[in-house]
Amino acid sequence: MRVEIVAVGTELLLGQIVDTNSAVISQKLAEFGIDCLFQTRVGDNLERIVSVLNSALDRNDAVMVCGGLGPTQDDITREAIAQVMGVKLEHHQDIEERIRAIFAARGRKMSANNVRQAMVPVGAQVIKQRKGTAPGLICPVRGKVIYAVPGVPHEMSDMLESAVIPDLVSRAGMTGVIRSRTLRTWGLSESALAEKVAPRLEALDAGDGRTTIAFLASGIEGIKLRITAKAESSAVVDSLLDDEERELRSILGEIVFGIDDTTIEMAVAKELVRLGITLSVAESLTGGLISARLVNVLGASDWYRGCVVSYASDVKYKVLGVEVGPVVSERAAIEMAQGARRVLQSDMGLAITGVAGPSPQEANLVGTVFVGTSSEKFGDRAIQLMLPGDRDRIRQYATISALDWLRRILSGGKASTGLD
Amino acid sequence: MRVEIVAVGTELLLGQIVDTNSAVISQKLAEFGIDCLFQTRVGDNLERIVSVLNSALDRNDAVMVCGGLGPTQDDITREAIAQVMGVKLEHHQDIEERIRAIFAARGRKMSANNVRQAMVPVGAQVIKQRKGTAPGLICPVRGKVIYAVPGVPHEMSDMLESAVIPDLVSRAGMTGVIRSRTLRTWGLSESALAEKVAPRLEALDAGDGRTTIAFLASGIEGIKLRITAKAESSAVVDSLLDDEERELRSILGEIVFGIDDTTIEMAVAKELVRLGITLSVAESLTGGLISARLVNVLGASDWYRGCVVSYASDVKYKVLGVEVGPVVSERAAIEMAQGARRVLQSDMGLAITGVAGPSPQEANLVGTVFVGTSSEKFGDRAIQLMLPGDRDRIRQYATISALDWLRRILSGGKASTGLD
Repeated sequence: MRVEIVAVGTELLLGQIVDTNSAVISQKLAEFGIDCLFQTRVGDNLERIVSVLNSALDRNDAVMVCGGLGPTQDDITREAIAQVMGVKLEHHQDIEERIRAIFAARGRKMSANNVRQAMVPVGAQVIKQRKGTAPGLICPVRGKVIYAVPGVPHEMSDMLESAVIPDLVSRAGMTGVIRSRTLRTWGLSESALAEKVAPRLEALDAGDGRTTIAFLASGIEGIKLRITAKAESSAVVDSLLDDEERELRSILGEIVFGIDDTTIEMAVAKELVRLGITLSVAESLTGGLISARLVNVLGASDWYRGCVVSYASDVKYKVLGVEVGPVVSERAAIEMAQGARRVLQSDMGLAITGVAGPSPQEANLVGTVFVGTSSEKFGDRAIQLMLPGDRDRIRQYATISALDWLRRILSGGKASTGLD
Repeated sequence: MRVEIVAVGTELLLGQIVDTNSAVISQKLAEFGIDCLFQTRVGDNLERIVSVLNSALDRNDAVMVCGGLGPTQDDITREAIAQVMGVKLEHHQDIEERIRAIFAARGRKMSANNVRQAMVPVGAQVIKQRKGTAPGLICPVRGKVIYAVPGVPHEMSDMLESAVIPDLVSRAGMTGVIRSRTLRTWGLSESALAEKVAPRLEALDAGDGRTTIAFLASGIEGIKLRITAKAESSAVVDSLLDDEERELRSILGEIVFGIDDTTIEMAVAKELVRLGITLSVAESLTGGLISARLVNVLGASDWYRGCVVSYASDVKYKVLGVEVGPVVSERAAIEMAQGARRVLQSDMGLAITGVAGPSPQEANLVGTVFVGTSSEKFGDRAIQLMLPGDRDRIRQYATISALDWLRRILSGGKASTGLD
């Protein structure tokens, strides 16, 4: 099974949007062992979209088109597909009603333009829209198939998982089961991780080929290790995944903070719930990023109290009770954590202070960060980090590093800096 | 002049790397008025690279290939181009010596593999490497041209600016100037905006074609309207852009919050600086997102005091002084804003409370949000919003809506809900 991804949109050709959809789709295809040998981007031009779809069909079994399903005159993917299929577009009343209902639910009136989104090439099957107004399409043509999905990433992802991949898998007549599990890590560079895992990779290469491992750099969110297993049944696949997860955890230790969609804040939440303690935060350079990540966790109100963003120094002194003096220091980080704990009445306080730049502060270099915690169970502790990058990257790294440090303290492990 | 971008690398087809190079290149091409109508990605496979290069040459005047110039056996862009040109590769001693010197300067010995990088198709011109070991290539073929540059972003950018663009501009015999300006908007859906701008689009279509407008959906950050002008000189282009910006602003009014890279928090900051007042924030459902965006603005410490994230209700009561009772209400939003202003000692307080879901709260539906402000100059005010989407989207919309509402109040305009 060979699929070409076609991303439609003049904004892609002008470089105003980076095409992340193609990367997401191709990762998913690779996971299911479906080949993707070409990817193409084309603008909002009927003739050229038709020509690209035709050559994509020539050299593949299926084509997945992303984008151009919106309500404006620019959005002509529906027309292009109808032309490739040699059919007309027909109006689907049920789609229009769903769109109308979406607008009504938001207390808004559907614009006349949106009726375009209810047009479907004759013979195409509709993928119901659940996240936005545009439905997706499954279009049989020349004994092959064109899938059309919206360009909005979360709408695309929803249809990819719920409709396109299942349809592809069934067309490919795949019988075995393929499943993946991803180990999330924080604290080692990709090359250091690769070195640690190298002997295991060699062992798998020499094995029966049913289990494979791949590294996925996820930028700022740490390195992912994806385990993929293929076998004749779900039970066997799951046991292969379990075995390999156990193997890799024993090699990697506490740098693994979770699997699959587990975020570092979920890992923190799990420990807090296990210990039955509440948390509050005091932030300076991160400005609220740590707090915003914590409230992302479902059920955060069970253990999360709140946060004081003490951006101005005198807020640290007056609200949090930090002793007047330098505010980028271990002492200030601990006093901020104590202050958060006292003011917001929690069992544990987490605090962060540092220099995001662009200029040094109190003779501390840009990237200098102190994280502090205060709690009865684990005492008052602080660490210093030196983080790389620009203002935004330093903030992001600081946020994840602070959460990871907290996770390690809560889980009773050795509290490393989270970056080495 | 029409250029196709071809990105080479199996890691792109597996989704392990997002192709940012194509976006960077196409932005630069657009800036110089060079058309880019297609972009293609292909893996490290000789036959397929050759086939992609041939069809790209068929439909364009030039092709820019990115990637596959490294030292390993996978790197076969040189071989593919030679095949398309119908020539052999020849060894360039001067390139090898430059590579050897680069390694020597890093205190390392050149690996034997790197000699591959000194191979050049007969008849091609070399773009000197300044950032990495791989030289670029300018390859005449069929009266057209193939440029080859490394896939490493900073090496690619260097050669793009120093060699590829100048060569393209001179081949195109270009004389005119092309420039763009983007208006950022918040508060209207893409279709509603399109309806408003439709008469202007028609007027431009009927005009001299020197000015054009395009819509760019930027997901959660509002809709962008890009104006592009072409003319014989910079002065004329700039005056065309000014005229059209004025025209669109008069049509769109206060939904325009800035141009180009201006964010909504920068627009807020500009007003605060103009008025000479300080701001503090109290957040509930957004958990710190508003605060984190505000500290993104350079120089935020001049006007930003800090934030209280009152996630637990009793933090609203005890820390912010909200009267005990319902916390998802206009009254609570205003009292939170008053509390932030008092506790964090600012001229103005901005507060937000609401239901991000998944469950309703105090009989309020998921998506119900109240935003409040308190200040001497503008009094105490609140609005109610009904926001669409899941937990994360509601938070993001709430954040931008609150900042936009604040911007409108500060700029003295009519304070709409920011979403209709």
